[in-house]
Amino acid sequence: MDIKTKVGARLRDVRLAKKLTQEKVSFDSDIDKSYISEVENGRRNISIVNLEKLTLTLGISLKDFFNTTDFS
Amino acid sequence: MDIKTKVGARLRDVRLAKKLTQEKVSFDSDIDKSYISEVENGRRNISIVNLEKLTLTLGISLKDFFNTTDFS
Repeated sequence: MDIKTKVGARLRDVRLAKKLTQEKVSFDSDIDKSYISEVENGRRNISIVNLEKLTLTLGISLKDFFNTTDFS
Repeated sequence: MDIKTKVGARLRDVRLAKKLTQEKVSFDSDIDKSYISEVENGRRNISIVNLEKLTLTLGISLKDFFNTTDFS
């Protein structure tokens, strides 16, 4: 699994675990919903600034975000 | 400290701890040395694909890379 797919899947898992919609995350992060969808589907090479915006919106630190076996 | 600066400082710390030069990391990662220098100086919004290339070259997982208080 490539890194874009791993990051996208992790973002989706965290979002769903918090019962947030893409619309809500888009509104709160000021990042376009279609971009969020593409990132979650592994089709975007997200930058660290946008990744931080999304993780902040999702209420998870980057330390906890990457703290899974997928990233070890 | 913004995320670009944090990531850049962390990359430099890991590189220096492993006694690697920017030239060596550039050669092994196939990423331009001046780009690496700019990332380390917090002037680049690095993508997840390039960040993974650099952490792989530095021999550190993304899980361990982000496992510092700077990212919590």
